[in-house]
Amino acid sequence: MDISSLAPGVRHFLGQAAYRELGEFESLARALATAPNLAVKEGLSTAAGRALSKHHGLITEIRRRGHEPATEMAPFVVALDGFRRETSGAEWHELLLSCYLCGGLLDDFFIRLSDGLPRDIGPRVAQLLGEDSGTGVLIQELQTAIENDVALGSRLAMWGRRLVGDTLLVARSAMPAADPAEGAEARIEPVFTELIAAHTRRMDGLGLTA
Amino acid sequence: MDISSLAPGVRHFLGQAAYRELGEFESLARALATAPNLAVKEGLSTAAGRALSKHHGLITEIRRRGHEPATEMAPFVVALDGFRRETSGAEWHELLLSCYLCGGLLDDFFIRLSDGLPRDIGPRVAQLLGEDSGTGVLIQELQTAIENDVALGSRLAMWGRRLVGDTLLVARSAMPAADPAEGAEARIEPVFTELIAAHTRRMDGLGLTA
Repeated sequence: MDISSLAPGVRHFLGQAAYRELGEFESLARALATAPNLAVKEGLSTAAGRALSKHHGLITEIRRRGHEPATEMAPFVVALDGFRRETSGAEWHELLLSCYLCGGLLDDFFIRLSDGLPRDIGPRVAQLLGEDSGTGVLIQELQTAIENDVALGSRLAMWGRRLVGDTLLVARSAMPAADPAEGAEARIEPVFTELIAAHTRRMDGLGLTA
Repeated sequence: MDISSLAPGVRHFLGQAAYRELGEFESLARALATAPNLAVKEGLSTAAGRALSKHHGLITEIRRRGHEPATEMAPFVVALDGFRRETSGAEWHELLLSCYLCGGLLDDFFIRLSDGLPRDIGPRVAQLLGEDSGTGVLIQELQTAIENDVALGSRLAMWGRRLVGDTLLVARSAMPAADPAEGAEARIEPVFTELIAAHTRRMDGLGLTA
């Protein structure tokens, strides 16, 4: 069971993944700007740098194919900006949890999807997206906050459960070619089950019930 | 005439320069988040990446000397945050002008100051700070806006004149050792004249009267 045959064309994939990483960068930069102390700010600067570097790696692939980055990303602005607005959270810890959970799930997803790209680009993109995201600081900050504040922990558990739904919708919309008649849903289902399992492990790692 | 003998110690220099570049990054990230279109957003992502890379280069130097980045930057937070608040502008073009003018002037200044650092670090820091800042997109956006809107042009000219004063104050405070009795002011003056001349050339290049 795999979804590689449901992968969109290269241009679609690169434009969407590039704008997705730019959004991840923007969210991390916002978390950095409002960080409670310098050590956390510095840690977030690393995570923001990693997201930016993934974004620029995808932009390089777009240019290598002779396309304009702004043109290629344009079709995905409305949906991904909406997604980011919905998942930005009411306060700093919710924003941090979104960066970590949505970022992790969507990186996993786009890596899976890249199996369906041509051999001259798929593996390179998978490697790029699989690079360390520098999210250690997010995990540490969230764990500490959750351990020290039971009420925050329950609120974040609810928030994490909501995030997975919104994020899977974005993932689903990244496969425009999926045709029900071809049994696409049956192939997508097990992959989504895997993505949800990884999400649950991330929640568990933070001490949150998924 | 040079100011290298007025340079602060290495730790002071690195902590201050590192936090300064982090602030430049934050300002560029904010300009990116509110950019009017995708092409400009993409251009600003390059500029933000360059500032972040200078910041991380300085952080590497701090760690190489066995110090904690957060501790080294801490003494400069209040003054530099205040400076950034004062110079962030009332709207997007003012913010953009600040990123370009303050960033240019302070990079010039810290490069000059790095002459006074030990030989095992000064030249490396000068090279790092002298790397391309990717500000082409800022120049282009500002030029176009100024050409098309006379009122905006006069407002930005006034803003640019105010920025140079605030920025020189920050530069002046970066030389804590300067002792009037040793004729420090006489050595500082010609360097500031040079910095102002470079600032004026940047203003001219945008079509603004300095």
